[in-house]
Amino acid sequence: MTEFTDPDLQERIRPVPLQQAYRLLNTGATVLVASAHAGRRNVMAAAWNMPLEFSPARIAVVIDKSTWTRELVEASGRMVVSVPTQRIADLAFAVGSRSGRDGDKFEALGISTMPAAEGTPPLVAGCCGWLDCRVLPEPHVQQAYDIFVAEVVAAWADARVFADGKYRPLEQIAPLDRTLHHLGAGRFVVPGAQIEARPA
Amino acid sequence: MTEFTDPDLQERIRPVPLQQAYRLLNTGATVLVASAHAGRRNVMAAAWNMPLEFSPARIAVVIDKSTWTRELVEASGRMVVSVPTQRIADLAFAVGSRSGRDGDKFEALGISTMPAAEGTPPLVAGCCGWLDCRVLPEPHVQQAYDIFVAEVVAAWADARVFADGKYRPLEQIAPLDRTLHHLGAGRFVVPGAQIEARPA
Repeated sequence: MTEFTDPDLQERIRPVPLQQAYRLLNTGATVLVASAHAGRRNVMAAAWNMPLEFSPARIAVVIDKSTWTRELVEASGRMVVSVPTQRIADLAFAVGSRSGRDGDKFEALGISTMPAAEGTPPLVAGCCGWLDCRVLPEPHVQQAYDIFVAEVVAAWADARVFADGKYRPLEQIAPLDRTLHHLGAGRFVVPGAQIEARPA
Repeated sequence: MTEFTDPDLQERIRPVPLQQAYRLLNTGATVLVASAHAGRRNVMAAAWNMPLEFSPARIAVVIDKSTWTRELVEASGRMVVSVPTQRIADLAFAVGSRSGRDGDKFEALGISTMPAAEGTPPLVAGCCGWLDCRVLPEPHVQQAYDIFVAEVVAAWADARVFADGKYRPLEQIAPLDRTLHHLGAGRFVVPGAQIEARPA
């Protein structure tokens, strides 16, 4: 389990119960996929993701065959899926515009990470939630559709954004701390209103 | 191919080229899944969905084993995935709160549909996009994870919301015509701002 050494992070970044981790992805935000293997690490953006199951907590992410992330994830069986906020929109787009094969993106783009347990892929700062995942090997759908199914083994959220197992009411979340929903080509929509449906 | 008999719909609801259909789902909106088989029909909400491939246009949707939609989709191999707007938020929540086994939801909830080709599941009015899909049978992931992989065989969009193969700039889309992103329990966030990332 990750323990943050920075007291400010300890206060702000809190564990999320696994059965509520799906809620971090439920609104369809773009995520970052961080990976690490044999001393190398990478991060990519993935608009194509979804929850799969509450308990055990499972998610699916599409990871294209051409990506270096795919090699690292297949080799390590591990990925950290994080939910970037508007604060790092430029970075969320930039990590999709270059390959980690050409050099460490964290260094090239000055990406801040938070201390994590040995062997865990990096936790990217400026996100509002992080899901540490173990890939469930499913060779056929990985090969045929680029679908990676994973089980969430730990999750954390920024308490300014997500607390008590759910996103705070939107009006309590500063615009810069809101999630990114990718239209394409670096254009995103950001939540601006929260509504509650009336029962039929 | 669906041809709308209502001249107003002909003007507003336009075909979307298949290779751009994924953009309707790219921002992670909640969708409705309509199904029909042997004279019966149903519709459910599905926050858990994602694009899979540009061309051939493919998507994935999670359809729980307990749902009647699942029976109809498995029997027919067909579903229409549509993208509801804030205009029908109450309905998008209501269709998830009852089962079609207990009676036709379209009648019970007064859901308006648009004329579609013979055999096509209903196109729900009040949506901004519709993807007519054929299920690609994948028994293992259907059984293990409730994942349904489908190929989009036709798509349409409301030209007030989505035109020239992409969503219009958000400021041109009336609030009631914007997409729904499910937080849970009938609470949704709705896009309120559009941003463009600056290249690194």
